[in-house]
Amino acid sequence: MTEATFPHRHLLGIEGLGAQELNTILDLSERFLEIADRPIKKVPTLRGKTVINLFLEPSTRTRTSFELAAKRLSADAVNMSGSASSTVKGETLIDTAQNIDAMAPDVIVIRHAQAGAAMQIAKHVRAGVVNAGDGAHEHPTQALLDCSTIRAHKGKIAGNTVCIIGDIANSRVARSNIFALQTLGAKVRVAGPRTLLPLGIEAMGVEAFDRLEPALEGADVVMMLRIQTERQAIGRFPNTREYSRYFGLNRARLALAKPDAIVMHPGPMNRGVEISSELADGDRSVILEQVSRGVAVRMAVLYLMAGGAEAERP
Amino acid sequence: MTEATFPHRHLLGIEGLGAQELNTILDLSERFLEIADRPIKKVPTLRGKTVINLFLEPSTRTRTSFELAAKRLSADAVNMSGSASSTVKGETLIDTAQNIDAMAPDVIVIRHAQAGAAMQIAKHVRAGVVNAGDGAHEHPTQALLDCSTIRAHKGKIAGNTVCIIGDIANSRVARSNIFALQTLGAKVRVAGPRTLLPLGIEAMGVEAFDRLEPALEGADVVMMLRIQTERQAIGRFPNTREYSRYFGLNRARLALAKPDAIVMHPGPMNRGVEISSELADGDRSVILEQVSRGVAVRMAVLYLMAGGAEAERP
Amino acid sequence: MTEATFPHRHLLGIEGLGAQELNTILDLSERFLEIADRPIKKVPTLRGKTVINLFLEPSTRTRTSFELAAKRLSADAVNMSGSASSTVKGETLIDTAQNIDAMAPDVIVIRHAQAGAAMQIAKHVRAGVVNAGDGAHEHPTQALLDCSTIRAHKGKIAGNTVCIIGDIANSRVARSNIFALQTLGAKVRVAGPRTLLPLGIEAMGVEAFDRLEPALEGADVVMMLRIQTERQAIGRFPNTREYSRYFGLNRARLALAKPDAIVMHPGPMNRGVEISSELADGDRSVILEQVSRGVAVRMAVLYLMAGGAEAERP
Repeated sequence: MTEATFPHRHLLGIEGLGAQELNTILDLSERFLEIADRPIKKVPTLRGKTVINLFLEPSTRTRTSFELAAKRLSADAVNMSGSASSTVKGETLIDTAQNIDAMAPDVIVIRHAQAGAAMQIAKHVRAGVVNAGDGAHEHPTQALLDCSTIRAHKGKIAGNTVCIIGDIANSRVARSNIFALQTLGAKVRVAGPRTLLPLGIEAMGVEAFDRLEPALEGADVVMMLRIQTERQAIGRFPNTREYSRYFGLNRARLALAKPDAIVMHPGPMNRGVEISSELADGDRSVILEQVSRGVAVRMAVLYLMAGGAEAERP
Repeated sequence: MTEATFPHRHLLGIEGLGAQELNTILDLSERFLEIADRPIKKVPTLRGKTVINLFLEPSTRTRTSFELAAKRLSADAVNMSGSASSTVKGETLIDTAQNIDAMAPDVIVIRHAQAGAAMQIAKHVRAGVVNAGDGAHEHPTQALLDCSTIRAHKGKIAGNTVCIIGDIANSRVARSNIFALQTLGAKVRVAGPRTLLPLGIEAMGVEAFDRLEPALEGADVVMMLRIQTERQAIGRFPNTREYSRYFGLNRARLALAKPDAIVMHPGPMNRGVEISSELADGDRSVILEQVSRGVAVRMAVLYLMAGGAEAERP
Repeated sequence: MTEATFPHRHLLGIEGLGAQELNTILDLSERFLEIADRPIKKVPTLRGKTVINLFLEPSTRTRTSFELAAKRLSADAVNMSGSASSTVKGETLIDTAQNIDAMAPDVIVIRHAQAGAAMQIAKHVRAGVVNAGDGAHEHPTQALLDCSTIRAHKGKIAGNTVCIIGDIANSRVARSNIFALQTLGAKVRVAGPRTLLPLGIEAMGVEAFDRLEPALEGADVVMMLRIQTERQAIGRFPNTREYSRYFGLNRARLALAKPDAIVMHPGPMNRGVEISSELADGDRSVILEQVSRGVAVRMAVLYLMAGGAEAERP
């Protein structure tokens, strides 16, 4: 694994990364993927490296994925949690980050409710910073695991039509995916209630739809977003039943997509709201594979950010 | 440790397990017990295996016991906590479990407020599932550590009279112990206020008493249960002082049991309520030994569930 | 690292320790300090040892420092948190400690809101106990990391004048530092509003000032304390603005100290209250170095408490 190179110290977002950089991570992920199938799911690659998971917004699942990724690379993983609004006893976010950095971690994985938090931290620390979700801004490892999953099923990203459906305006998952998918040559459509589509979204190069059906037509990939009642503005749509009626994915609607279209969801799912249980568990769903690939993608990212290549020759 | 075999992928409860199966775990635990006395308290047995502690009901102590057991076997242990009522952002328990499972853990240890939660999960995952307490249903590793402790002091389980005292109706500890002790040949008595004895408890093969004194007569083992104010129906007994007066264990009452009777408690204790401080700290108390053996029993269980035998030959 | 000896099983406070004992820890810390600069930040010294971080008062930061220290020594670190008021389900602190001890940890690191908690636990367990802060009593590793930092900048502790400023009456950091600094030969001044200076503080051998300026004159080290609104009696000073006006450190005031005086703070800082941002980030601030040295000091303490020297020869 010595030839993988990545010219950035941090992974703050997908925006601005080129196809070669994204492919470096995706290719490396493939090599880490099979470690989860071994009887001994652990390689010594990052032994003696420290990864701190600073989760200032609750997310047991993503934190677990990063923690497992770190441990399977033999890094020491330490979790710090809290809430962003209070930070640590009124301290500024930068002070918190610099304090953590003074303990000499190799990578700080940060989740924060505010857009830009990861970048703000990255400017003030020596450690590599990985953005694990910052407000409605970016969630780069999610987009990478989504691309990894699409590539596994479609052979490549380029040429595919990917339809992202839901609360586009407030979704860091949608944003990161739009950047990644387009950079890798996919055609991206977004669909959602008009109130949840950002004004001028077309400027990002996507086709926008305020109805589900035309967006699904001929799609290779259908990516449902979680309806995030905790983040969206109250009152942007009547209620979840109404939402489901117009934007929930079900068998009839999926029939509009290509016959071999795959169904994705970043989780956690609201079954019966944005996606029917039948499809969530169906043979076109790749939702659990997304989770599995998430660990491998995060192993690749931690490896690159911790300077794994050098670490192999102590 | 290669000859130990256990024909189940999961440990969901004691009910249904045979004496040989229980003894397999107990025998294996004895071998793990001395590891805690070594200067280097760690064996490489489960290196590269992943244990996820999914505690959806608070229990720092049992979680710590499982976490230590995993780490002393060199497994990677990851903790996920939360509350069962909310689960993860409204997701179903099965979705949570399947998501965790997609990260390729070898064992999922689950504590949950609802009876049946562990079994429900076990049906949907590839990992081995260990029930660390599901509502008032079962808590199998507690029963196993209790049996391990009794066996150490009495030489064997068979032929002993074990008296379990307290809130029998709501206790998973009592249920699991009734199954284990009877399967291993002990005679079990239960005692408690009539309101805390389940109707028809005798059908489980135990003798039931609504007074403490006759239950204690000639007992070899006195097992006090914690009065769980958080679980019992409010109003089932007047108050803790009243409870203590009729069902609290003290020196005078213990004199009714055999002279070499041992005193047990699963912890945490309410001193002065279900047990006097004098007895809790007395020379017949084996309460702290229960805790020590708990780690060893959990090492044995994790070993068996993670397929430790195969793991030793990578 | 075999010659380091320390004649105590526990580190409960600085009070009562002699200069040679303090220097043993400080010297050992220096040797651990460079581990954080290695590509592989890990030594096998405490492999197979167990460190339990029992934090019954919230402190992500100190817990992280201890956890990293344990992991970089290859010990297994397990975190237990909770609140001291409720302890574990109404159980006594001693029962909690004995239960943990029954799981055979080598070291228990305890933070607790009540003065004396660490000593109380130490009397009842076999593990080594490290006090990570007990109420307003002591926080010995903080004083040690402060001494380590001063020694690094001033060559030695003896002969320096150290000025500690803030809520002296309620500060375990101040207490531990007063003991450590005086034992090592420094002259200690304390300054704060009269309401935050304990009566009879001079009996501890320090000079007390109810104004900042005279206290700063000619000082070699200026150690600001955090204004702990959560611990101090309400109403002891008008408000933070008033506090800042009379006791906040700024450039003009620092000019009263020696030209090469260093500025310290145990964190987390209230910028603009007890310290100006300019000084916090200035070239005389050693605040982040304190944090870095904290990990090394805690490595030394864990090493000594876990009987590291013997552990090296299994």
